Amino acid sequence: MSSAPSASDDRRFVLTLGCQDRPGIIAGITSFIADFGGSIVEAGYHSDTETGWFFTRQAIKASTVPFGIAELRERFTEVATRLGTAEWQLHDTGERRRAVLLVSKDGHCLHDLLGRAASGELPATIEAVIGNHPDLAGMTEAHGVKFHHVPFPKDPAERGPAFEEVRNLVDAHDPHAVVLARFMQVLPPELCEHWAGRAINIHHSFLPSFVGARPYHQAFARGVKLIGATCHYVTAELDAGPIIEQDVIRIDHADEVRDMVRQGRDIERVVLARGLRWHLEGRVLVHGRRTVVFN
Amino acid sequence: MSSAPSASDDRRFVLTLGCQDRPGIIAGITSFIADFGGSIVEAGYHSDTETGWFFTRQAIKASTVPFGIAELRERFTEVATRLGTAEWQLHDTGERRRAVLLVSKDGHCLHDLLGRAASGELPATIEAVIGNHPDLAGMTEAHGVKFHHVPFPKDPAERGPAFEEVRNLVDAHDPHAVVLARFMQVLPPELCEHWAGRAINIHHSFLPSFVGARPYHQAFARGVKLIGATCHYVTAELDAGPIIEQDVIRIDHADEVRDMVRQGRDIERVVLARGLRWHLEGRVLVHGRRTVVFN
Amino acid sequence: MSSAPSASDDRRFVLTLGCQDRPGIIAGITSFIADFGGSIVEAGYHSDTETGWFFTRQAIKASTVPFGIAELRERFTEVATRLGTAEWQLHDTGERRRAVLLVSKDGHCLHDLLGRAASGELPATIEAVIGNHPDLAGMTEAHGVKFHHVPFPKDPAERGPAFEEVRNLVDAHDPHAVVLARFMQVLPPELCEHWAGRAINIHHSFLPSFVGARPYHQAFARGVKLIGATCHYVTAELDAGPIIEQDVIRIDHADEVRDMVRQGRDIERVVLARGLRWHLEGRVLVHGRRTVVFN
Amino acid sequence: MSSAPSASDDRRFVLTLGCQDRPGIIAGITSFIADFGGSIVEAGYHSDTETGWFFTRQAIKASTVPFGIAELRERFTEVATRLGTAEWQLHDTGERRRAVLLVSKDGHCLHDLLGRAASGELPATIEAVIGNHPDLAGMTEAHGVKFHHVPFPKDPAERGPAFEEVRNLVDAHDPHAVVLARFMQVLPPELCEHWAGRAINIHHSFLPSFVGARPYHQAFARGVKLIGATCHYVTAELDAGPIIEQDVIRIDHADEVRDMVRQGRDIERVVLARGLRWHLEGRVLVHGRRTVVFN
Repeated sequence: MSSAPSASDDRRFVLTLGCQDRPGIIAGITSFIADFGGSIVEAGYHSDTETGWFFTRQAIKASTVPFGIAELRERFTEVATRLGTAEWQLHDTGERRRAVLLVSKDGHCLHDLLGRAASGELPATIEAVIGNHPDLAGMTEAHGVKFHHVPFPKDPAERGPAFEEVRNLVDAHDPHAVVLARFMQVLPPELCEHWAGRAINIHHSFLPSFVGARPYHQAFARGVKLIGATCHYVTAELDAGPIIEQDVIRIDHADEVRDMVRQGRDIERVVLARGLRWHLEGRVLVHGRRTVVFN
Repeated sequence: MSSAPSASDDRRFVLTLGCQDRPGIIAGITSFIADFGGSIVEAGYHSDTETGWFFTRQAIKASTVPFGIAELRERFTEVATRLGTAEWQLHDTGERRRAVLLVSKDGHCLHDLLGRAASGELPATIEAVIGNHPDLAGMTEAHGVKFHHVPFPKDPAERGPAFEEVRNLVDAHDPHAVVLARFMQVLPPELCEHWAGRAINIHHSFLPSFVGARPYHQAFARGVKLIGATCHYVTAELDAGPIIEQDVIRIDHADEVRDMVRQGRDIERVVLARGLRWHLEGRVLVHGRRTVVFN
Repeated sequence: MSSAPSASDDRRFVLTLGCQDRPGIIAGITSFIADFGGSIVEAGYHSDTETGWFFTRQAIKASTVPFGIAELRERFTEVATRLGTAEWQLHDTGERRRAVLLVSKDGHCLHDLLGRAASGELPATIEAVIGNHPDLAGMTEAHGVKFHHVPFPKDPAERGPAFEEVRNLVDAHDPHAVVLARFMQVLPPELCEHWAGRAINIHHSFLPSFVGARPYHQAFARGVKLIGATCHYVTAELDAGPIIEQDVIRIDHADEVRDMVRQGRDIERVVLARGLRWHLEGRVLVHGRRTVVFN
Repeated sequence: MSSAPSASDDRRFVLTLGCQDRPGIIAGITSFIADFGGSIVEAGYHSDTETGWFFTRQAIKASTVPFGIAELRERFTEVATRLGTAEWQLHDTGERRRAVLLVSKDGHCLHDLLGRAASGELPATIEAVIGNHPDLAGMTEAHGVKFHHVPFPKDPAERGPAFEEVRNLVDAHDPHAVVLARFMQVLPPELCEHWAGRAINIHHSFLPSFVGARPYHQAFARGVKLIGATCHYVTAELDAGPIIEQDVIRIDHADEVRDMVRQGRDIERVVLARGLRWHLEGRVLVHGRRTVVFN
């Protein structure tokens, strides 16, 4: 897993692309880059044999590109047209990325992300934190980040206005990532659609096991010997979106639910941080229900 | 995880017991052992707070017991009565344990277990191998183990006599373990019942994910980032018996189903070998749908 | 790994003991506890075959003990005398444990421990944080914890007074744990001796590999495929004290030193938190250069 | 980790190359391949920022190459000259690869590799097994593989002729891999030199910890919490060659040396099998004391 740029010499123009596979694509892209003397410092390729789809991510050293990203985009459009793909993106790692976090009462993921952002480890700024409970306001504000409390009615049928308010608060920042950091609320389908490819959830089980509520209770009842966490894109079907990252830890018969809750936090934090980082760095390409992760 | 005895000084009398928890049980058991000068070399305890059930496993150095296991059993019966438990066992690690293996076409688990048995690593002898296909006869016989081929009709409704034959072949050895080493056949409920607590299966997924057929195909379709294997006791409900051991390995988007099949074998082998070993050493106590594993 | 008590019914009197192994010890201890109706909710035993030394940890439900911990200690003294051991401790989980942290510039371990303490996950209060640089004062004080800046002279030969000041600041709290949370300073032998069994370090390598400075640089140069972290007791010999906990993560050829630094933090945090927790809960018994960890 | 070809459509021409990095290399290589309509099914790139060296591995679908590998080599020579590299290889996965195994008394790695070869899982044939003890002759011959017993004198100074005989037996097969499958003998420098880049060892520790003899005894004495295994190229400096693969498993205080030996075998087998497979598939490029592994 390669590191995010930190110094100015580390600035990259990152190209991600998906198209129907056929001979000559890599040559076409890399010749385009070589023609202006661009230096590729990281390259990932994947060809899906089942669907015949091709994916690539190319990180070009910005200092070797003799023009700006706008012109690079313009020039690449021709290449893309020739390759017959409309699915591509070019982003500049020198431009600040923005994340907004949705939280509830459990603060371990929030605390972890705030710490990473503060130490420059997260390739984004945390623009705002929105909680359906006020509990985590203090922790958020201690890091100089704005906290919004949006109370949610008990009756799920009456939560429309609250979600509307959350949507407006989030959209005000036009974020690259909307992170459900143990938000514990199921997003309505229209929000899933609206934030498609940007809303990221951390679920406290090794999906597809233990979908929905109280996964550690489910894990205890089933008697599994490992518990896990899953970072995935949010889609309308609960806990069924494309998986970005997962990990597990070993437990044993002496671990009760509360032990799982405690130990699981260590996995949740790390899995969310890794998945979010890869998303922000343009390392994750969604392909149906699966992801290609160039890390 | 402590080792199995290998030399004569390593002979143990192993007590396993489950009963309603209450103060004084451990004292009762250990005083009984101390009274005849018995040396406890390994002791495991667990108290299930949900059900109030108590479990223990005590390995007593046989050379410190001034009488045989028969008398030890007789003497302990009184203690057990006082503790109000009928659920206890005493076994002598000096007595050979017996395993029978059921296989199909995939030989990796069989090959691994034959190798472990040959090197003295498995605390049991493999008495016989039964296959519904003849493919693994050669591998089995090369290790000097008897192979029985029991053909299975295509129509599941007509498999009764084949299962009857398998049952007879297995029962002739009165085995401590009936190992479904990638047997790929669903045991009928009456056999599950008949071999309850002795029939052990290796399933090639991290259960409860991907129950049933073609779990690697299911894993690929879902896009998980880790694949696993589960060793569990066989019960009438498919792939739902008490789990003894599980483990996982990391995969990525470049891994196709056949890559998962290949890499999964390394996990299946190890998970089955660990689970079987613990079962044979009396380290696994079943508690409803869960297991207590003193390893 | 069993959980720390959190509610009042979770209060435990925890006995830890080491003595020459011989038959009857467990019976002696557990009979003593059973005689007053004490309920043992967690029990760990270990007999070291090499040295013939016996170790145990017993967690007794405080509500089943009809007297206080002072009387329990007094009564147990007789048992200990009979067992011929002077090495035992009894502690009350209802009594607050105290930790003092030593830090430098790297804040990830400090941030993690402050978060755990704030959420009640750490079985101790963080009494104070002492830094040889002022960088982490803000993070510490945001959690309402006192920060002391003790500048260290560049010349190691002149650091005596600074260490003296650190010693006094630490000792003012009489802490159960002195945590070197990436302190980056080698403690003088007299401080190692003074805090023996209480000073805990996190080293950013899988010891005994890569002792001393810049372990990630050493790991990169050697081309290892996994990097790790080690939590250990501090002794006069650098990075050679008894190991409490270790863990690793996978890296590959694309990971440069700065990638290792970033990814290693996730392991350092977790390994330190686990080791510290076990130490605070009386789960770690030191035995020469090794530890017995009842988790 | 992508799979080895198994069917004819899976035949690949695999290019591996290392050269001084500069813009245009990838374009040069991929344009060359695109020009004859070659389909790249797997591509790995790495640029070492420290040394400025570039590495690539390209797997081309053989059925898309309109000529044989000899002509492909000839044509690519021009490209290589233009790129200024003499370090490149092209191999045909349709050509059988050959391995020779050196063993001693411990059979677990041999047994594992024989099983993998028999099931078609190893991308090579095992041409011969050479043992300095006769113990493993039976296991080898049961798999239809030739076993040579070459007795080694007790005095290391007198082992020259034995090593000479081993060298001749090995070289008769001109193998792509000389596998020290727990051979337990230190190769003389001239053999290390002679088999450079082809001799692969499995060491039963997580190197660089516990170099040399009895690593599990060393691990026990140090009290580590994880034990490991390392697959590496053999060089004249003992256990210091470039590392191909490593892995670890968790142990605890109850594990004695013999438990480590037993559990370590499961790691040794898997680490050696993975490392050997990657070597045989041309996935491992050596770079000084480090390796680039495209898996």
